[in-house]
Amino acid sequence: MEGVDYLADERNKAEFDVDEMKIVWAGSRHSFDVSDRISKLVANDPGFSKEGRTMLPRKELFKNTLKKAAYAWKRIIDHRLSEEEATQLRRWVDEPALQIFIGYQPLGMFIPAIKGQGTDKQQKKWLPLAHKMQIIGCYAQTELGHGSNVQGLETTATFDPQTDEFVIHSPTLTSSKWWPGGLGKVSTHAVVYARLITDGKDYGINGFIVQLRSLEDHKPLPGITVGDIGMKFGNGAYNTMDNGVLRFDHVRIPRDQMLMRVSQVTKEGKYVQSDIPRQLLYGTMVYVRQTIVADASIAMSRAVCIATRYSAVRRQFGSQNGGKETQVIDYKTQQNRLFPLLASAYAFRFVGEWLKWLYTDVTQRLQANDFSTLPEAHACTAGLKSLTTTATALCGGHGYLCSSGLPELFAVYVPACTYEGDNVVLQLQVARFLMKTVSQLGSGKKPVGTIAYMGRIEHLMQCHSDVKQAKDWLKPSAILEAFEARAARMSVACAQNLIKFDNPEEGFAELAADLVEAAVAHCQLIVVSKFIEKLQQNIPGKGIKQQLEVLCGIYSLFLLHKHHGDFLGTGYITSKQASLANEQLRALYSQLRPNAISLVDAFNYTDHYLDSILGRYDGNVYPKLYEAAWKDPLNESDVADGFHDYIRPIIKQQVRTARL
Amino acid sequence: MEGVDYLADERNKAEFDVDEMKIVWAGSRHSFDVSDRISKLVANDPGFSKEGRTMLPRKELFKNTLKKAAYAWKRIIDHRLSEEEATQLRRWVDEPALQIFIGYQPLGMFIPAIKGQGTDKQQKKWLPLAHKMQIIGCYAQTELGHGSNVQGLETTATFDPQTDEFVIHSPTLTSSKWWPGGLGKVSTHAVVYARLITDGKDYGINGFIVQLRSLEDHKPLPGITVGDIGMKFGNGAYNTMDNGVLRFDHVRIPRDQMLMRVSQVTKEGKYVQSDIPRQLLYGTMVYVRQTIVADASIAMSRAVCIATRYSAVRRQFGSQNGGKETQVIDYKTQQNRLFPLLASAYAFRFVGEWLKWLYTDVTQRLQANDFSTLPEAHACTAGLKSLTTTATALCGGHGYLCSSGLPELFAVYVPACTYEGDNVVLQLQVARFLMKTVSQLGSGKKPVGTIAYMGRIEHLMQCHSDVKQAKDWLKPSAILEAFEARAARMSVACAQNLIKFDNPEEGFAELAADLVEAAVAHCQLIVVSKFIEKLQQNIPGKGIKQQLEVLCGIYSLFLLHKHHGDFLGTGYITSKQASLANEQLRALYSQLRPNAISLVDAFNYTDHYLDSILGRYDGNVYPKLYEAAWKDPLNESDVADGFHDYIRPIIKQQVRTARL
Repeated sequence: MEGVDYLADERNKAEFDVDEMKIVWAGSRHSFDVSDRISKLVANDPGFSKEGRTMLPRKELFKNTLKKAAYAWKRIIDHRLSEEEATQLRRWVDEPALQIFIGYQPLGMFIPAIKGQGTDKQQKKWLPLAHKMQIIGCYAQTELGHGSNVQGLETTATFDPQTDEFVIHSPTLTSSKWWPGGLGKVSTHAVVYARLITDGKDYGINGFIVQLRSLEDHKPLPGITVGDIGMKFGNGAYNTMDNGVLRFDHVRIPRDQMLMRVSQVTKEGKYVQSDIPRQLLYGTMVYVRQTIVADASIAMSRAVCIATRYSAVRRQFGSQNGGKETQVIDYKTQQNRLFPLLASAYAFRFVGEWLKWLYTDVTQRLQANDFSTLPEAHACTAGLKSLTTTATALCGGHGYLCSSGLPELFAVYVPACTYEGDNVVLQLQVARFLMKTVSQLGSGKKPVGTIAYMGRIEHLMQCHSDVKQAKDWLKPSAILEAFEARAARMSVACAQNLIKFDNPEEGFAELAADLVEAAVAHCQLIVVSKFIEKLQQNIPGKGIKQQLEVLCGIYSLFLLHKHHGDFLGTGYITSKQASLANEQLRALYSQLRPNAISLVDAFNYTDHYLDSILGRYDGNVYPKLYEAAWKDPLNESDVADGFHDYIRPIIKQQVRTARL
Repeated sequence: MEGVDYLADERNKAEFDVDEMKIVWAGSRHSFDVSDRISKLVANDPGFSKEGRTMLPRKELFKNTLKKAAYAWKRIIDHRLSEEEATQLRRWVDEPALQIFIGYQPLGMFIPAIKGQGTDKQQKKWLPLAHKMQIIGCYAQTELGHGSNVQGLETTATFDPQTDEFVIHSPTLTSSKWWPGGLGKVSTHAVVYARLITDGKDYGINGFIVQLRSLEDHKPLPGITVGDIGMKFGNGAYNTMDNGVLRFDHVRIPRDQMLMRVSQVTKEGKYVQSDIPRQLLYGTMVYVRQTIVADASIAMSRAVCIATRYSAVRRQFGSQNGGKETQVIDYKTQQNRLFPLLASAYAFRFVGEWLKWLYTDVTQRLQANDFSTLPEAHACTAGLKSLTTTATALCGGHGYLCSSGLPELFAVYVPACTYEGDNVVLQLQVARFLMKTVSQLGSGKKPVGTIAYMGRIEHLMQCHSDVKQAKDWLKPSAILEAFEARAARMSVACAQNLIKFDNPEEGFAELAADLVEAAVAHCQLIVVSKFIEKLQQNIPGKGIKQQLEVLCGIYSLFLLHKHHGDFLGTGYITSKQASLANEQLRALYSQLRPNAISLVDAFNYTDHYLDSILGRYDGNVYPKLYEAAWKDPLNESDVADGFHDYIRPIIKQQVRTARL
């Protein structure tokens, strides 16, 4: 029965206006309109079909992606899409590789690198070429032997004043550039990070624009060895992308292809540091990480949308007198896995929105030479990137999510835990910032922004939760103080343990695991507090605010339960209060239940985008699963290829051994 | 430099006799000898090469697997392998599909089902056919609409006294058999679970032996629709297996193909229950789950072996004066992720060994009509299956493990969380058993086996940890009491909350998430206590016992830290004692560090089996990664297929739009 909505009953139960929630999720009516229009345009365009993608062998898969990228580019031109619309198109086409070929999303950092580190002249020359796709660029930083530690890179860029050129060279095997997306087969240029050597001295890492391939026939230029690093995990996923390997054998580039905004080399080979502070470079990182947090909320919401819809379709156990079995979503255990993820999707969305504001704010301050908020903004984006990507990746680690549509999503997503900084390394940066803040308490320096609560340290070290009954946990002030007290006490405890070490660095290494936990506590506080701030805004629309309050409560109380050891251990709550929180959490699950399907509908994802039979909007799962099975190449014939060679001889064997 | 051992320094550091540890890991010298011999035989046989497997399209991949299965079968015959040796061969060949084609491992439940549920006569007829591979059988239980809930299956087997036959039929789409391994393309027969209907009455689910395909030409028999369910996650993984879909259109089978050990249908169509109790069927489940726990320790140890070796090879940060960077394994944060997994591998190994004993014990008792220990054994295997598979699957969910060799391993592994009972469903069964035990306390019925500690409930409810300094946590008695007190108190707390509900089933549903946590606490106690029991045995060999003590300490204290909220919340330990446990844990990490590589060497895995460049025995990672990259089909040509069609037109475009 085509056209029937098997989830209609679920949708009728909703206690809020879904259309209004779509606007809240999108950020504004304008964003919703653009996003809605473009997502439908993409879904209805057969050129963007995802059909059969997981069955293609690598070479075909890659070619198919190139075709789609060329098609997308054509659509952007033909429809005369604005930059905002083009960004939406890339997003909805939903090919990770497209972000590189035709855009400058997180993975495509060629343009941001030039914007952030190039001089005005360099920007003027290179950006239009990249924007118009007359060149295709990638970001070649990581090496075979070197990941997160940029300072450890081995590639060299040695200045030769005789020819006014840099000589780019890979001195060792481990210095081979390794992993950059778009490098293997597509890019004509790269921003290459290398040790700047001039006058016989090593000045550390700098970026250089290097042409890799001919603009005529696409062949690698002399001295360049470039290729794909091979199969990655997943059936489609990142195998549509040409993550690459790159070696240089004394490749020469003109001096003006060194990115010179922060430091320069003169034609005499003198190294000059400009008066622009190096911290400026952090601005780019804040930008990139902010987009990664936004992506985490997208990946999380996508997974949750599929899992929630399927949990409403799927029935199991509990049938009485031969009636229908119970919907899986009605089990408290399922709610306990699903609803906190649903709440996290909203929580990450709102903290992502706030980070966008933070980036604008930091940028304006930087332009006015105000660097005061940079360390805090840097720590905060690092921590939130780590927190949100870890939570999202782990949500895919659960067996129950490993069904149609989801595995692909996570194969694409998991690398987010590593790119742009390994998550543990990032949390250690946050911890370092926290320890510095604690050590400066009482020095008169007032902590600002997300760390402002440390200014009330005396109160936070002594206070106790005044929760007396379950519903007291609904008060934002009760939640906020609990998360503040926990974060503050964990930081202070770490700081006190650090003092016991003669060598602070040794102590930092020894206590690293505890420091990471303190950093996580701090980051969770940020997410909780930004969610609460969101609720304090004027939110129109029938029932919207109530739903967001429920989600905020679930997000906070789930974390409180999951980490109740921290809250108990620091003495802020009693074990009775912990039980009350858990009781309230269960009550919130019941409140959420009738709205669950509509809350995932509010993400406004098309079936094309979800690309999951389990997550179909209409809930018509089983017939479509059954139908899809027969499309597998193995089903082309009733009898398997190989039957005559490998199966028949065994079942027809005449030889018997005595022992078996 | 072929032949150089880059991990030699690591191996020289070991403080114990690795060869002796290999025997401990294998279980006995005999097991070690067989396993070592066969694993090398497989590794050196080019017929079992894994080369290029991840790049094959589905049809080729499947055919390749059939070829390997036929080859393995030939090897078993040619070498006249014993059953023990053949089992080892299947294991080391390491193709999940092989377990079905040529064996009866967990996924291949055809033979165990006939053994457990068939009459002596049925066993005599069918088992030799299956053992000699004259028929190939699979286990067709789950349906498109029905997973864990066997009682909800819809397939019918209606008795027709006129012809003395059963009519097997799929009345709905959702009754299609779905997912059984080996069903789609290979099996000639299946044990099909269906509702037994005779005399117009539904007698519930029973097993039936049904022939699916011709033994001559392998074509599906009349009335049978059978095929593969399509691509699954991963590049090789379970795509080598033909998980299948199966529908029956009034297919007739002789009456004597109903598995009749527990109940029979006479030729008049009368349903007769034999005096053999239904519980007997649980015996099969205990067997199967025990093998799943054993597999969990294998998957965990394999992943840990790869991750540990790579962590010793990989260096990052911390270089001073241009020297080498720090080995990743030296970071406390990395030790905190890696060493608890290493300890878990050993812990799961030992609890698996004990489960094997338990199965033998239960079997002997059943034969003597003693059913007294069955509920406890059943709960205990259910819980341990859930605990070990969840822990193992989650270990793959971490981003840092998503590198060469590991993703494949987890794509193969994750379904273990669902097959043979969804993990949450299983823990709820454990919880039910725990609640029953608590309710019977004081009734004079003495809890036995793994639940014996409940007999000391009064003490366990009141006692407090007497740990005063970090090293007190090394005492097995301190650990054991902590885990017992925590498990007992969590069970009792659940029981007390349950009483508050008028309807006990409603309470059970509402408190399900808490009940699962109590069940997990109980299962962790079992693993910890079996590890401690192992240590109390006589363990010869230089340094072996000391290493196992360190591992046991890490396993226990890591869990204690991870769940410190439980231990604090139930009031057994103070937050000071929790900190001391953490301190001791860090000290144990330092003790483990020099032995880490040798502890994974003790698993005695060949490079062929690990199939991971990162996990190579000799640590020669980077040159081999570099070498492997060039084998990707994408690197067959310098310029990508599709350049002329899709890339060149864009970078050479003459048309410009105003807006971009």
